[in-house]
Amino acid sequence: MNARSAKEVVFRGGRLADGRLVDLTVRDGVVHVVQAAIPSSPDDEDLCGLLLLPALVDGHVHLDKTFLGLPWRSHRAGPTVRHRIEAEKAGRGDLGLSVERRALNFLDRALSRGTVALRSHVDIDPACKLDHLHGVMAAREARRGRIDVQLVAFPQSGLLTAPGVSDLLDAALREGVELVGGIDPIGVDGDLDGHLDAVFGLAERHGVGVDIHLHDPGYQGALELRAIAERTRVLGLGGRVTVSHAFALATIDAKTLAITAEALAVAGVTILTNGPGPTPLIPIETLRAAGVAVAAGSDNVRDAWSPFGNADMLERAMLIAYRAGFRTDEGLATALALATTASATMMGRPSHGLAVGHVADFIAVDAETPAEAVVDRPPRALVVKAGRVVARDGSLVRENVSA
Amino acid sequence: MNARSAKEVVFRGGRLADGRLVDLTVRDGVVHVVQAAIPSSPDDEDLCGLLLLPALVDGHVHLDKTFLGLPWRSHRAGPTVRHRIEAEKAGRGDLGLSVERRALNFLDRALSRGTVALRSHVDIDPACKLDHLHGVMAAREARRGRIDVQLVAFPQSGLLTAPGVSDLLDAALREGVELVGGIDPIGVDGDLDGHLDAVFGLAERHGVGVDIHLHDPGYQGALELRAIAERTRVLGLGGRVTVSHAFALATIDAKTLAITAEALAVAGVTILTNGPGPTPLIPIETLRAAGVAVAAGSDNVRDAWSPFGNADMLERAMLIAYRAGFRTDEGLATALALATTASATMMGRPSHGLAVGHVADFIAVDAETPAEAVVDRPPRALVVKAGRVVARDGSLVRENVSA
Repeated sequence: MNARSAKEVVFRGGRLADGRLVDLTVRDGVVHVVQAAIPSSPDDEDLCGLLLLPALVDGHVHLDKTFLGLPWRSHRAGPTVRHRIEAEKAGRGDLGLSVERRALNFLDRALSRGTVALRSHVDIDPACKLDHLHGVMAAREARRGRIDVQLVAFPQSGLLTAPGVSDLLDAALREGVELVGGIDPIGVDGDLDGHLDAVFGLAERHGVGVDIHLHDPGYQGALELRAIAERTRVLGLGGRVTVSHAFALATIDAKTLAITAEALAVAGVTILTNGPGPTPLIPIETLRAAGVAVAAGSDNVRDAWSPFGNADMLERAMLIAYRAGFRTDEGLATALALATTASATMMGRPSHGLAVGHVADFIAVDAETPAEAVVDRPPRALVVKAGRVVARDGSLVRENVSA
Repeated sequence: MNARSAKEVVFRGGRLADGRLVDLTVRDGVVHVVQAAIPSSPDDEDLCGLLLLPALVDGHVHLDKTFLGLPWRSHRAGPTVRHRIEAEKAGRGDLGLSVERRALNFLDRALSRGTVALRSHVDIDPACKLDHLHGVMAAREARRGRIDVQLVAFPQSGLLTAPGVSDLLDAALREGVELVGGIDPIGVDGDLDGHLDAVFGLAERHGVGVDIHLHDPGYQGALELRAIAERTRVLGLGGRVTVSHAFALATIDAKTLAITAEALAVAGVTILTNGPGPTPLIPIETLRAAGVAVAAGSDNVRDAWSPFGNADMLERAMLIAYRAGFRTDEGLATALALATTASATMMGRPSHGLAVGHVADFIAVDAETPAEAVVDRPPRALVVKAGRVVARDGSLVRENVSA
């Protein structure tokens, strides 16, 4: 007798990281049983011994910036943050696709590569106002249920120095954006306290989280990190504040690093990295050992800031491991954790990963071990979101995708 | 009238880097005509507008070290060169496949990804003697005509400090190995002049080139580089000497770098990089501007030294560009040149690349521009070696492969 619930799905014969072959029963989108000797049914999904991994989570993207879907665009910006901000704004006019369309291209590509949740910053400035936000929100709506999108109202061109941006951020948060962003309080706005007053003021007023881009280098950057940690601690925002990039952590002396890491850990500030290429990498293991949460994201994917990237968080894990010199299975597992459970936790989803009672968000790949999956980045044989197969062999499952 | 030579092949409708659609006529393996309005034939290969690029050339691999074809092996070595040498030797006993078989796995994978020529270092030490060399030579013989393999007799465990290695290198060179290797004259052998006397002595006696692994850091490494340049100049070995890695160039001050680069340029010493992850990258553009030839190679591919790598030189070009911060089309073209023409020149093949009179070694990929090919690394739709299609859509063409 096969008396399954109508909303039950069985994934048969997958392999866990420890090598065990298991069947997964998913009920109402949640993992119900792992390794049960239940009767088989023709509706079962046969995993054929593929390796099961938690679904990928991208903690930092820019859905409104990507050129995905456009003809090749040569990189034109100069080497500094300011150059890139200006080059990007100058090029906005000749993008042939809408923000919504480009965001959809990104979301579909990310999903086909196993990302079921992501956090996107969205530019808000005096020129584009809330236009990008509305485009990204439309794309999010069109893919609701397949990929979860969290948004950050991002003052890319400055908050204090760009007229009206504070009010625009306020308007964005009234429209339901989940986090308020910030950028280089000293380097871009030239006013550490003023910038943080504005960002944390908006966070308090709207009850939202914070995610600040920090490119400012060395001791200046470390000072800003400690100021952000202090505000986070005082306001009780632990677990809801992220600093993205935080390049400063890569270049300060060990004692300053220890003091800064402790402040971040105590306050509950997450540090997010994309494993940058030319910039020194932040000391991931030292930070984690000090109790700092470290998450991972793609950052720029083929946009005015960078031609690199492909919305594949398994490749991102490889790049982070490659940069960090993670060669052991343990190190490679750390890189994978950054791109799965750690980014999920940052997004307020602590119950991520294959376990009874967790939402059934996972991928199946042809790899022997998680370490091999990171170094090889095999195509995603199966992407499962809340128990539903949303992509197969690198392509989206159509009935789940049409908006 | 179609009066083609029996040894003529036409590749129709490929796209060059400048956007022109061309037909290529290849006669006896050499590009004979580009963009001729010749009559078509059913035997023509239709390139359907795919982008044509020079075939890839891997300037530095270790065919005897790779674990390709073996079950996943967790990385066990400690962080230093010495640790890795010892861990590798300790693990040799339990490799289930012969050197020849693993080398064949590497060659087939490299060829399927568009590499038609490579230089492999082969360990020679008191324990393995010439065994690895003979295995690699058998693999090379089995793939002759499809992928060109140049060998370096490599004293991985030291030359002066490992008993009998000098004689073993001498024996290897008598067997037709094309280059003599070396390793960290100070860091491994503790005797700069003694090590270089031995290496360059063998090179002179056998009339072969030199390729030295140099991990030694900072000013010590720079001193060694200038000593190698001086010997190269005095012996007239310009163009036949390579220093692989040369990490030292990444960490010395600008004045020492300028002096060292000038010495390398004047002597004709090539510097080879694999775009390492955790180690600072050598200043590729500064070196090239100073007239130093810079080439690229995979280095370790899934072996006791590193779990990373996949024998794909287009991915290697991406990693080098990513590390170097090459974002413009020009920068990405430089990375591609390192993985094609520059490595070919290092291997004594200056006429590499799509031009009349050159050997018809090229790949065809689905990309709009060379820059896009580097960032995207699309599958190789076609790999052509001396006018013969040796791989198609990422898989080897069978009749050309069976040994």
